[in-house]
Amino acid sequence: MRHVISVLVENKFGVLAKIAGLFSGRGFNIDSLSVGETMDPSISRMTIVTRGDDKILEQITKQLNRLIDVIKVQDFTDQAYVDRELVMIKVGASSEHRAQVMEVADIFRAKIIDVSPETLTLEVTGDQGKITAIIDLLKPYDIKELVRTGRVAVSRGAQPLKSMKE
Amino acid sequence: MRHVISVLVENKFGVLAKIAGLFSGRGFNIDSLSVGETMDPSISRMTIVTRGDDKILEQITKQLNRLIDVIKVQDFTDQAYVDRELVMIKVGASSEHRAQVMEVADIFRAKIIDVSPETLTLEVTGDQGKITAIIDLLKPYDIKELVRTGRVAVSRGAQPLKSMKE
Repeated sequence: MRHVISVLVENKFGVLAKIAGLFSGRGFNIDSLSVGETMDPSISRMTIVTRGDDKILEQITKQLNRLIDVIKVQDFTDQAYVDRELVMIKVGASSEHRAQVMEVADIFRAKIIDVSPETLTLEVTGDQGKITAIIDLLKPYDIKELVRTGRVAVSRGAQPLKSMKE
Repeated sequence: MRHVISVLVENKFGVLAKIAGLFSGRGFNIDSLSVGETMDPSISRMTIVTRGDDKILEQITKQLNRLIDVIKVQDFTDQAYVDRELVMIKVGASSEHRAQVMEVADIFRAKIIDVSPETLTLEVTGDQGKITAIIDLLKPYDIKELVRTGRVAVSRGAQPLKSMKE
């Protein structure tokens, strides 16, 4: 089963390596991972998308909670949440194809953030379905570079996320 | 000096832990990190934003290049590039403040992706300056949750990035 997990951590040396090690040590691959500062620069928030056995993931979560630099672990799986990803795509687009690529960008509300005589670079955000759809539509135009941030998520509504510790 | 580094890696267990370990082992903190699949699902692309001594970073880069799961390491620092970040912000916004928060969203072309009687959740993308500006403007409205993806970057123009190996 696929899980989206949010981990609040102290922004210190080695925390990321420790957490990544916990997952790989148990044979869990990480599909995507993002880490960035929160409002408090001494605290970072990681969003991890991973797949695998629910029991083993429960063990990993317990071990995460035991790390002193981990403040809170949250699993979005059984909760209502919104997730988004940012993707930048550099597509081959000489003058003959440029209008077609711009049309695709328009449909998906992608922004054009760079242009050269042979390429267009697009920025697009959305959930998994939208991102997959725009990539599929752009494939025929020769994708030269593609960077994804990995998914980030927040809970729906006003209530904060339940912690897995509680 | 701040560096934005892109690393193409085989999508395998433990690669992330190894790379994060290389940075922390040398006393480099990672400001932000994103990992996501590329067009080829067996290959992931990491974007790392880090700060510190240029000489030590050169050593880290050499060690990265020696890891068998690392395909390519690129430093954007001396090149023209575009970088973007995605942020989701859940803000306190009861009826009396909702219009003000929506005005800020409008100015920054942020999208409203969730709403509850007491909150609004915004999605916004941009470079560091824009993200900092919108967060500063929203602070008075009680930020309840904030998730950042970390920066991702692509080179400007049509030419692919120079590899640091070459």
